[in-house]
Amino acid sequence: MCNVEPKFVGVLGGVGPMATVYFEQMVLELTDASRDQDHLNMLVCNHATIPDRTAFILGESKLSPLFDMARDAQMLARAGCGFLVLPCNTAHFFHEHIQNAVSIPLLNIIEETVKACAGQNAKRIGILATAGTIKADTYGIMCRRFGLSCVYPDPATQKQVMSIIYGRIKAGKPVRAKEMAALYNRMREEGSDAIVLGCTELSVAHRDLELHAAHPDVVDSLETLARRTIEYAGKKLRTT
Amino acid sequence: MCNVEPKFVGVLGGVGPMATVYFEQMVLELTDASRDQDHLNMLVCNHATIPDRTAFILGESKLSPLFDMARDAQMLARAGCGFLVLPCNTAHFFHEHIQNAVSIPLLNIIEETVKACAGQNAKRIGILATAGTIKADTYGIMCRRFGLSCVYPDPATQKQVMSIIYGRIKAGKPVRAKEMAALYNRMREEGSDAIVLGCTELSVAHRDLELHAAHPDVVDSLETLARRTIEYAGKKLRTT
Repeated sequence: MCNVEPKFVGVLGGVGPMATVYFEQMVLELTDASRDQDHLNMLVCNHATIPDRTAFILGESKLSPLFDMARDAQMLARAGCGFLVLPCNTAHFFHEHIQNAVSIPLLNIIEETVKACAGQNAKRIGILATAGTIKADTYGIMCRRFGLSCVYPDPATQKQVMSIIYGRIKAGKPVRAKEMAALYNRMREEGSDAIVLGCTELSVAHRDLELHAAHPDVVDSLETLARRTIEYAGKKLRTT
Repeated sequence: MCNVEPKFVGVLGGVGPMATVYFEQMVLELTDASRDQDHLNMLVCNHATIPDRTAFILGESKLSPLFDMARDAQMLARAGCGFLVLPCNTAHFFHEHIQNAVSIPLLNIIEETVKACAGQNAKRIGILATAGTIKADTYGIMCRRFGLSCVYPDPATQKQVMSIIYGRIKAGKPVRAKEMAALYNRMREEGSDAIVLGCTELSVAHRDLELHAAHPDVVDSLETLARRTIEYAGKKLRTT
């Protein structure tokens, strides 16, 4: 008995590895499914040793992550993936280059997240992200395309964001809810009417600390990408 | 700048899809790592639409999951994986066939779990698993190989195990801690001195409900495989 050749969603992952796993979990939890076979097939390249994205964008390292990511994209395409997703905001600096390396679509987490903010009628979007994403102005460029304005943290707040991402989450150490809430409040003080978790490591902390209900103005880029992935693959979102 | 070709651990997943994600998460949490690049590279085939394993083993369905799994194994081997793991006990009915389809090793979750029980000086191992695993006597065969005896649930208890696996966990519905504890107590009443979570869906519930500390005699097959995967890949286990 031979089954039809499966089509997979290709996940360009490992940047970081835990965010990749949370992305998969979100896709499963948000899919309308009552048995294994109702779920999406995902082929996940959780490639942890890809060189650090932020260090390269900031010029602190000459090791480019692009070559590994482009090669992973090609491997996933060859293995039969119908489209690709990249659950990492910082790596979207390379979105166009990776997209050019393959003939299947690569969804854009930045575009989907900014669209989600626009859908909530937000005008001024506060961005919590790595120094790499901020320096590359990845969200700023996309916000302008949608007629929205973008609010970046002041240098002291940005330093705190990086300390949470690199010093804690990537290091497997805990983050406290009040540290995250303090970041959200700083962005509100700066006039943000939506706050983007524009680094998937922050999504991990936000989710672990169950901060969603208390902060409805926070738009999680990882969850936004998970929802879009389900829809793009032709599956339904779970309603309850 | 070109990086060395990465070696991946190949994860034959999707059986079921959530257990696969929990396996990845366990590997990340149990690895001694302080930055992304300290982690294992994993190539994860989360192939949800593979036909149900238990239904095939029980003769309720003619759709064999073997062909998909063997093809996935070959695809992972071609993509450069150094060895394979299959985070599903029921599917280990096909272990030998999948192993014969590739020239890289496929770790055996049943063998690793029984070894872990032997390492705890257990003699009578209670098995909580799908009806497929029970009917195939997958754990019984392995226990005899290590000189241990195997305790299977009575029919009423086994019916409850299946209702938790299929009616709840695979359906995305909650399980209560006292339901799990009742299963553990039944196996203790039958004289088990170690209780194996011999279905990775039960591992998901056990983990979600944080039952580990209260039930030190429970040996989780999924966690055992995660630990072995880290060691086999040459990485260190996190000590704290």
